[in-house]
Amino acid sequence: MEVFNNKTDSFAKILCGRTLAYQQQLQISIDVQEHIAKGHSAPCLAVILVGDNPASSVYVAAKQKACAKVGIISNVLRFSQNVSQDELILEILRLNKDFYINGVLIQLPLPQGLDSNSLLEALDPKKDVDGLTPYNLGRLVSNRQNFVPCTPLGCMDLINSIFPDVSGKKAVIFGRSLLIGRPMALLLEQANATVTIVHSMSKDIKEFSKAADIAVAAIGRPGFITADYIKPGAVVIDVGITRVEGKLLGDVHDSVRGVAGWLTPVPGGVGPMTITKLLHNTVKAAQLIFS
Amino acid sequence: MEVFNNKTDSFAKILCGRTLAYQQQLQISIDVQEHIAKGHSAPCLAVILVGDNPASSVYVAAKQKACAKVGIISNVLRFSQNVSQDELILEILRLNKDFYINGVLIQLPLPQGLDSNSLLEALDPKKDVDGLTPYNLGRLVSNRQNFVPCTPLGCMDLINSIFPDVSGKKAVIFGRSLLIGRPMALLLEQANATVTIVHSMSKDIKEFSKAADIAVAAIGRPGFITADYIKPGAVVIDVGITRVEGKLLGDVHDSVRGVAGWLTPVPGGVGPMTITKLLHNTVKAAQLIFS
Repeated sequence: MEVFNNKTDSFAKILCGRTLAYQQQLQISIDVQEHIAKGHSAPCLAVILVGDNPASSVYVAAKQKACAKVGIISNVLRFSQNVSQDELILEILRLNKDFYINGVLIQLPLPQGLDSNSLLEALDPKKDVDGLTPYNLGRLVSNRQNFVPCTPLGCMDLINSIFPDVSGKKAVIFGRSLLIGRPMALLLEQANATVTIVHSMSKDIKEFSKAADIAVAAIGRPGFITADYIKPGAVVIDVGITRVEGKLLGDVHDSVRGVAGWLTPVPGGVGPMTITKLLHNTVKAAQLIFS
Repeated sequence: MEVFNNKTDSFAKILCGRTLAYQQQLQISIDVQEHIAKGHSAPCLAVILVGDNPASSVYVAAKQKACAKVGIISNVLRFSQNVSQDELILEILRLNKDFYINGVLIQLPLPQGLDSNSLLEALDPKKDVDGLTPYNLGRLVSNRQNFVPCTPLGCMDLINSIFPDVSGKKAVIFGRSLLIGRPMALLLEQANATVTIVHSMSKDIKEFSKAADIAVAAIGRPGFITADYIKPGAVVIDVGITRVEGKLLGDVHDSVRGVAGWLTPVPGGVGPMTITKLLHNTVKAAQLIFS
């Protein structure tokens, strides 16, 4: 991995998302086969893609490819950016009732003028493989996980691959988004870590982050997290991914390699795990119908 | 207030819940009158009380009294501790459909053998004035508050009475319960505080708590939080309330009076605010039907 070879003083080990994702996808494909062997149809994911955001198209293509690899049928429903809120809601209500659709993913962000919240409110929580409906977020708050948002779920596995037990560990989360920061905090706290969320309005951020055994960066500011934010030896999960001059950059600055114990690369870190958890949730949704 | 008069070196000011609750209840009674003046029936709260837990009976009686004071009709439905889960669920489904019932409160804890989660799952989120259904907890996570649990909502007002803007303030929450710790963390974080939840598995708790401008104690261990946990001048909210030898004790030790800037008494601190927020949520539920 090029980014790790151009400095001699670096010692952070690469926490490779691709490897873990590969292992988990092998198991998922076995689960899919078993599901089908029981006489059920293959799990099926519907993806709602609105408009022509290039990044969204890339992500959706990657999700389709991963689905195919493990035997999940994926069905991308494309809408022009001029589609109305009501049309999308009707489509979601139709998908809710379609027996052959196990999971529905609304690819975010939506074009301006569309309200993701009201779409998520319409979605049946049993098909909410992204874990973003109020019901599923509430289940996460009340320690009864149903579908958990894919990125924090994947981050948790990356963290657990280093610390199988995070009990008593200090964790700092940079960023408080609905998709990442907040569910990540809940997952870590429920696993008995001591969690602090820091954000744009926080002061003395380093006081918290320099003490943290686990740092999760999800702010979308390339290179913002420099070495002086990080405790030596910490596990650092870089969720940020921003395209700058054709390159994909994380939130974590190169200098962190000289301090962290473990660091996820960008790309090849969190991304593959997010996709894997989408596959996981889709198979789970299919299995739940028959449980 | 006796507890504050027997030491000369104390300087924490009393953060009186009774005073704030009184002010807010005045406004709520005006809101109730306006609601009725529009031709609607008085807001009505149904309370499900199971078994004969003495503390629950005391709390329910206090809630009834407060309802009467502001003009809310309250209806306590008492069940023997031998009632079945299914009977309770049927009752909740009946209340969901009863047009004259605006709010339904399931008094917790329930006797052993009954599962509060499945009861909450049955409750219509529109009548969930305690804010504990998955849907309403999820709305809190996604920054779109609907009904918020009463105790943290009341604590937030107490905190705001000292710090109208908590932006950038450090807050530590002792305890991670569904009723208090977790929603409290979400409320404070959404108000731009930097929040750490500490709990039974946390290490170096004082590192966090000694830096916190705001401390919320909700662990149910009388006197656990001693002065050495608290930053001088901090606002300390004592949610704990435990009966020991006939006296009600909070989680905060007397010694904290010598360090904190502001401290809620027990009783007379958080309790009256919890009840006030129940009234608030019930009126809100009644108003929402017609909005």
